[in-house]
Amino acid sequence: MNHIGRLFQINIFGESHGNSVGILLDGVKPGIKISKEDFKADLLRRKAGAKGTTPRIEDDEIIIESGVFNGYTTGAPILLRFLNNNTKSKDYSNLLSHPRPSHADFTANNKYNGFNDYRGGGHFSARLTLGIVAAGVVAKKMLDGVLFETKIINLGGEENQAKFNEILDDVISKGDSVGGIVKIKIKNVPIGLGEPYFDSLESTISHLLFSIGGVKGVEFGIGFDGASLKGSSYNDLIISKEGKTKTNNNGGINGGISNGNDIDIKVFVKPTPSIAIPQETYNFKDDKIEALKIEGRHDSAIILRSLVVLENACAIALADALLIKEAYK
Amino acid sequence: MNHIGRLFQINIFGESHGNSVGILLDGVKPGIKISKEDFKADLLRRKAGAKGTTPRIEDDEIIIESGVFNGYTTGAPILLRFLNNNTKSKDYSNLLSHPRPSHADFTANNKYNGFNDYRGGGHFSARLTLGIVAAGVVAKKMLDGVLFETKIINLGGEENQAKFNEILDDVISKGDSVGGIVKIKIKNVPIGLGEPYFDSLESTISHLLFSIGGVKGVEFGIGFDGASLKGSSYNDLIISKEGKTKTNNNGGINGGISNGNDIDIKVFVKPTPSIAIPQETYNFKDDKIEALKIEGRHDSAIILRSLVVLENACAIALADALLIKEAYK
Amino acid sequence: MNHIGRLFQINIFGESHGNSVGILLDGVKPGIKISKEDFKADLLRRKAGAKGTTPRIEDDEIIIESGVFNGYTTGAPILLRFLNNNTKSKDYSNLLSHPRPSHADFTANNKYNGFNDYRGGGHFSARLTLGIVAAGVVAKKMLDGVLFETKIINLGGEENQAKFNEILDDVISKGDSVGGIVKIKIKNVPIGLGEPYFDSLESTISHLLFSIGGVKGVEFGIGFDGASLKGSSYNDLIISKEGKTKTNNNGGINGGISNGNDIDIKVFVKPTPSIAIPQETYNFKDDKIEALKIEGRHDSAIILRSLVVLENACAIALADALLIKEAYK
Amino acid sequence: MNHIGRLFQINIFGESHGNSVGILLDGVKPGIKISKEDFKADLLRRKAGAKGTTPRIEDDEIIIESGVFNGYTTGAPILLRFLNNNTKSKDYSNLLSHPRPSHADFTANNKYNGFNDYRGGGHFSARLTLGIVAAGVVAKKMLDGVLFETKIINLGGEENQAKFNEILDDVISKGDSVGGIVKIKIKNVPIGLGEPYFDSLESTISHLLFSIGGVKGVEFGIGFDGASLKGSSYNDLIISKEGKTKTNNNGGINGGISNGNDIDIKVFVKPTPSIAIPQETYNFKDDKIEALKIEGRHDSAIILRSLVVLENACAIALADALLIKEAYK
Repeated sequence: MNHIGRLFQINIFGESHGNSVGILLDGVKPGIKISKEDFKADLLRRKAGAKGTTPRIEDDEIIIESGVFNGYTTGAPILLRFLNNNTKSKDYSNLLSHPRPSHADFTANNKYNGFNDYRGGGHFSARLTLGIVAAGVVAKKMLDGVLFETKIINLGGEENQAKFNEILDDVISKGDSVGGIVKIKIKNVPIGLGEPYFDSLESTISHLLFSIGGVKGVEFGIGFDGASLKGSSYNDLIISKEGKTKTNNNGGINGGISNGNDIDIKVFVKPTPSIAIPQETYNFKDDKIEALKIEGRHDSAIILRSLVVLENACAIALADALLIKEAYK
Repeated sequence: MNHIGRLFQINIFGESHGNSVGILLDGVKPGIKISKEDFKADLLRRKAGAKGTTPRIEDDEIIIESGVFNGYTTGAPILLRFLNNNTKSKDYSNLLSHPRPSHADFTANNKYNGFNDYRGGGHFSARLTLGIVAAGVVAKKMLDGVLFETKIINLGGEENQAKFNEILDDVISKGDSVGGIVKIKIKNVPIGLGEPYFDSLESTISHLLFSIGGVKGVEFGIGFDGASLKGSSYNDLIISKEGKTKTNNNGGINGGISNGNDIDIKVFVKPTPSIAIPQETYNFKDDKIEALKIEGRHDSAIILRSLVVLENACAIALADALLIKEAYK
Repeated sequence: MNHIGRLFQINIFGESHGNSVGILLDGVKPGIKISKEDFKADLLRRKAGAKGTTPRIEDDEIIIESGVFNGYTTGAPILLRFLNNNTKSKDYSNLLSHPRPSHADFTANNKYNGFNDYRGGGHFSARLTLGIVAAGVVAKKMLDGVLFETKIINLGGEENQAKFNEILDDVISKGDSVGGIVKIKIKNVPIGLGEPYFDSLESTISHLLFSIGGVKGVEFGIGFDGASLKGSSYNDLIISKEGKTKTNNNGGINGGISNGNDIDIKVFVKPTPSIAIPQETYNFKDDKIEALKIEGRHDSAIILRSLVVLENACAIALADALLIKEAYK
Repeated sequence: MNHIGRLFQINIFGESHGNSVGILLDGVKPGIKISKEDFKADLLRRKAGAKGTTPRIEDDEIIIESGVFNGYTTGAPILLRFLNNNTKSKDYSNLLSHPRPSHADFTANNKYNGFNDYRGGGHFSARLTLGIVAAGVVAKKMLDGVLFETKIINLGGEENQAKFNEILDDVISKGDSVGGIVKIKIKNVPIGLGEPYFDSLESTISHLLFSIGGVKGVEFGIGFDGASLKGSSYNDLIISKEGKTKTNNNGGINGGISNGNDIDIKVFVKPTPSIAIPQETYNFKDDKIEALKIEGRHDSAIILRSLVVLENACAIALADALLIKEAYK
């Protein structure tokens, strides 16, 4: 269940307060030049430190455990790990009886009969997105020429980027949190990626996006706003031999298959569930509703760090689709 | 690529103008009472005939080809077929050179090197959703007690149901089309369905929803509107031993796992791409932009017939998740 | 569970006495010329009628239900069906209480809680191998230049082909049955098919072979006889640039990957379990051991009809491996 | 391709001379008590040191990287690693131009375009079977009451155990190697594991066995020797309510499904390909046949260390089948 992909396959593992977190890749083309350096830029984009992000800062040094030899991928599985160094386990002792609202505490406890590692969210921790980022770096190496432009277009309901700073100051000062909407534009996508039905590009991309904690909405092209359009204005007219369309309301995908136009995706990331403001929750020990004060270090706007995670999730889906396309050339 | 599911598995097949369309199910529990009658209600909900739907009306009589014996599922694969009787092949001769905007004509032609069956959209035809509906009927039989409430909450930008009729009259008279937003509420979902990461319930549900033609947006709970909320108001406070929450902004899923509250989903269905109004497209034979008039019989609002398709897609995802849960009890 | 394959995927369905049996193929390359005629030769090789085979003779006319258009594969799923015409249901009424030795009656009844279609073995019937044969025909079309030589090298313990006729006469006259060993030699296999570990060519080929009823042993190259060899004589010395080896004890596969030499496989097919000679079995109704006389029409040597089934199972595995190889070229 | 399993899933990784080798498990039941101690016995059975095994002795200390908390499995993926400490890389420099006979050097070099890690066989090294052993230990924990008896019944063609020592002395003194046949008897297997066709227990077990280097033959029950039997003597008569049979020629499996009798498997393991005796191979640099002397430390009879590997491969297949059975209870 922690595995996805038909040819380019990834397997995620680890816990927030365990030895390490990481990802195991399979089906990577042999002969791709790769080094620790290649991961740095994307890992840095995910890193905490900026305003609105957690003060728990890990060095996020990647360990390439296997599958790379003399600087090139070998075709064998690539295990990528990140050690957990900066953990404070004492902050999380209360979670068993007092599940945090909007977190996985309650569901995980139920599903795993209380055996799940609850420290810092355990396997559900946002720290595991390190693996998604790392896998995406490898995926991008297989997506020659494809470009990603990813940005926040809505923070806390505000679409004016100039005001984002103000919004962050506000929630930080109040111990609250915000979410927002991320827009991903993918350029130079080859025509013919994806399949009708269950491997539709929308299906595989959304599958990966919704596997990331906090994602609660995904739309392609104009998305939900298209409900106001008639077919005559929604339809994207084909205006060139290469399939270029006049508009891109479909987001670059028809019948589940890329049409050569930009793939446009919008993703809603919910407000970070961990807030400093006291909330109510159910006390399962004493069987009553009770106030809960979440201690520890958290992101006021996890969305700030999610851009590269979401982008790389898309890259993973595309890399798999591209390999499948190659098989049928 | 036309296959999905871990235990409850479905395989879709067929073309609009071929012998038949249908679905092959595997991993169905043995001993489920099932007959042709059981499919009627849901198939009727998908059927054309009402205002805004195509005048191509098929009898949609289901053929249970295998996997059912003496009125009960046997545990062997269940092949469900629907004959294509009411086809008019002559309407579609123009599609090779003049791909219809927002349709899969261009992408399919590219992907399959011109070998795809283009008649009536071929394998991409909305007629294949018959199979999804039928699979969902079987899925629901495995989802004892789970209830689905599905309705259109937005048609052509209008949220007032009383005006839907007017909107349909308008687009029908103009030869145009509309889309809208479907809301699915799923009640009595057991706690513990779904997995963290790649089998998250949001991932598997969205995967199936986005495999249906015309779906371009999926959101859970409050969805994109949640961008305006702070964490303190977005978070769903747990207020009972059974995990009931005060609000349901997360749509009944935390950490990818059902939390026992209603699963709330909104789905954007784009306007039917086939419209009677002439449009421009690229003429690939003569290498120029040209007017295109789509002949044939079409839905002005395919969304009207999509409700049961979307609902049953969700049922398929839940049935698979429930079987997995059973395995780990 | 009735599904296999990574890119070239097959799904088997049907029962001996149901409407039809068949196979649903996915991941077939578009643009392959194919017609009913193409299946005839291999279907004929499986057909009953010769000495030692069942007097139940079906016409085995293939129905190409989908995925083929204008004589070429389209890239969409191909549903292939065979109607069951010549069934005599009355012969099988006794199986519930008196499971036939070496058949699946007892295990199926247990696994499916008595809901399985027991008529003629139901889903377990050798009639389903029609689907395997048909899938193999399509697979072979993707395996350009690859040649298969398949023969019986041992019938009832006898390795002298001239005596096979005599052996058949003997078991037919006694109402008994025989099995034997089939040798499959596959020529012109490209180097590089298969993977280390779980997609090793031995793994995927044996997986498919052992999915065929009656197969109880599979070996590659010299196989079990190699136990008597020292490494110095077992090892296949490489003697040419193309990887030709002096001997072929490894059967053309090293590290799970084809090495360009012939793939040599031996398969043990057990004696047909249905025999006319009375046997004992457990009477589950009256709770005692009892004599059982199997009525109906059966093969005295199902191995005679299995050659093409086994050969085509191998072709299915190879076609999938070839597509994967293409993806990584 | 390094991934297998439907619910209980394993992913193998690592190279002989990389950082580590290991296995990533998914779908393990939560709440299983497990510690490093639990792996010791089986790892010891695989360990080198005895006569006929390599002098490269690793400590084989298992690192439980994730998925275990407070001594119990959590339900999250379990990453198990083994460091490579005792490596001598200098011994392997010659393999690129001079592929070793019966090894994967030639096929791997071809498949991966020369990018594979060739040191000590790289990803193909028998060292990776550590992961199989470790996964099997976890699998056995899920197979409550199931017992395995595994032994060598044929070494170098000799079936008399008293002479095995002599055979080893002989090949060691000559710098040669031997293989043989391993018999695995699995007791107390529940009825109903496995499926017809592609998840037949023979298919999934053989798939895993053939994924282990050196395995070139697998048979169930009496196996190939059954070619000499008539149906009347091959058939296993059912003699009790619990499905006990008089004989066990079918090896405990009918129709792909366990019948409650012992599962009897025989596996042919080829002679270790690395021998000290000079052999010929093709020199791909100078384009001629040339003598090859394999340096380094090797097993004269890898079969001695393979028993627990083969046994645990079977356990992996059974654990997955048992979980599936649970899902349909």
